[in-house]
Amino acid sequence: MTRVAACQVPIDIDDAEKTRRLVFESVAEAARLGARLVVLPELALCGSIFADATESTSRAEPADGTSVRFFAELSDAFDLVLVAGFCEVSGLDLPYNSAVVVDHGRVLAVYRKTHLWDFENELFTPGDVLPPVVETSVGAVAPLICYDLAFPEVLRSVALRGAQLIASPANWPDSDSPDVRPPEVSKAMAGAAINRVVVVVADRVGEERGRRWVGGSVICDHEGYRVAGPEFGVETVLVTDVDLDATLDKAISGRNHVFADRRTDLY
Amino acid sequence: MTRVAACQVPIDIDDAEKTRRLVFESVAEAARLGARLVVLPELALCGSIFADATESTSRAEPADGTSVRFFAELSDAFDLVLVAGFCEVSGLDLPYNSAVVVDHGRVLAVYRKTHLWDFENELFTPGDVLPPVVETSVGAVAPLICYDLAFPEVLRSVALRGAQLIASPANWPDSDSPDVRPPEVSKAMAGAAINRVVVVVADRVGEERGRRWVGGSVICDHEGYRVAGPEFGVETVLVTDVDLDATLDKAISGRNHVFADRRTDLY
Repeated sequence: MTRVAACQVPIDIDDAEKTRRLVFESVAEAARLGARLVVLPELALCGSIFADATESTSRAEPADGTSVRFFAELSDAFDLVLVAGFCEVSGLDLPYNSAVVVDHGRVLAVYRKTHLWDFENELFTPGDVLPPVVETSVGAVAPLICYDLAFPEVLRSVALRGAQLIASPANWPDSDSPDVRPPEVSKAMAGAAINRVVVVVADRVGEERGRRWVGGSVICDHEGYRVAGPEFGVETVLVTDVDLDATLDKAISGRNHVFADRRTDLY
Repeated sequence: MTRVAACQVPIDIDDAEKTRRLVFESVAEAARLGARLVVLPELALCGSIFADATESTSRAEPADGTSVRFFAELSDAFDLVLVAGFCEVSGLDLPYNSAVVVDHGRVLAVYRKTHLWDFENELFTPGDVLPPVVETSVGAVAPLICYDLAFPEVLRSVALRGAQLIASPANWPDSDSPDVRPPEVSKAMAGAAINRVVVVVADRVGEERGRRWVGGSVICDHEGYRVAGPEFGVETVLVTDVDLDATLDKAISGRNHVFADRRTDLY
């Protein structure tokens, strides 16, 4: 079994030092509890409720910039894999909404969000490459970002390429939901069950410039059961053990297999 | 709004008359409560725990046989659309596990299950055509059957072809689940949200030759929220109103659209 964590942290978009301290404390707590892989929210340090494209562009950093170096240092200090969102310089008009995978201090991969949500279309450039599947010290990890989870095509793609664990930094905007479990959680659960992969979503919590976040972080096992979270609306660190070896076996009955049963002759 | 129902009925595989009476009473109750579309379980009248292929073959009927005529009569008598499973003669070694869509007494379509579950592989021939999208008196309906729901490719296909409501006869085998809501329910919720379609699953309940069924029928609205069920393990009729007009609008924010946002350049 592998211990994994989702850090459901708030942000103060106008106080970078405070945010870094909150993130540090959250990752330290996950490490203290034994986590070997930790996921942070989307745009973990910089926030996402930017006034305009000028602000998102001004917050952008290269993949060897201050934010990613901070993630790498955390990952090195606590001996773990860290998946976290950051705002990446693109060389184009608008920056990327990216996620980095760092392992014991080494940057292994950067993924640029391919499905932008609402206002993000005015702030970011969408990526043009599907999420990579990254060999890490705990297994094969695919970073997705937030709205990507609404496209089962993406989850299928990374699972077919060998992903054992989908790590999704997220910022789920709160709404007047008629159900305490928003459909986003169902997408994580279904995606896990359908592909027999572990899904770890780290969602933002609290308020950011008047926008409230759900705080719906969740960890789903390879059968699609929630094994940690959601703990809506509170600052928390979800920590649980998942069976990454079991994700390698796609058989779900004596005669069924989640990949082989696809009717590739029909779709 | 359109009132729809899922009939969560038990079966006595060895007492056809009793089963027909249970199904009749369940559909009559749905009609009394105002349902315009009613879904029955997979293999609604004949059962599915067959001893062997000889028994499944002996129970098979053509699409104008006794079972489908019974469904047509129910649909005619109660002025509604009925989607129900039956065992269909195939002309091959093994019959099909099929679902029929009948509307006010008329047979509009027959779909043959394309993804067979476990022991079904020894009892049935898989269909070779994806579910049709059927224009009915309540809107565009796509019949899926049970394990089909585990393939988001199928839900995406019928949604792209205009389905407003996915009607899924099901027989979900019970297990020692660590969660009262099995992953199957999440697949229905996620499929509804991802495609902005209504999903109605009618699941079997009770015991059949020693096999216990979940009784996890559920109705999900076009945003993926459960609006009726599940009521695990009890004989029940789920009835609720759904907004089929809303399924025609695939926009989910001022700048997002569940179909247009797919990165068809990448997958």
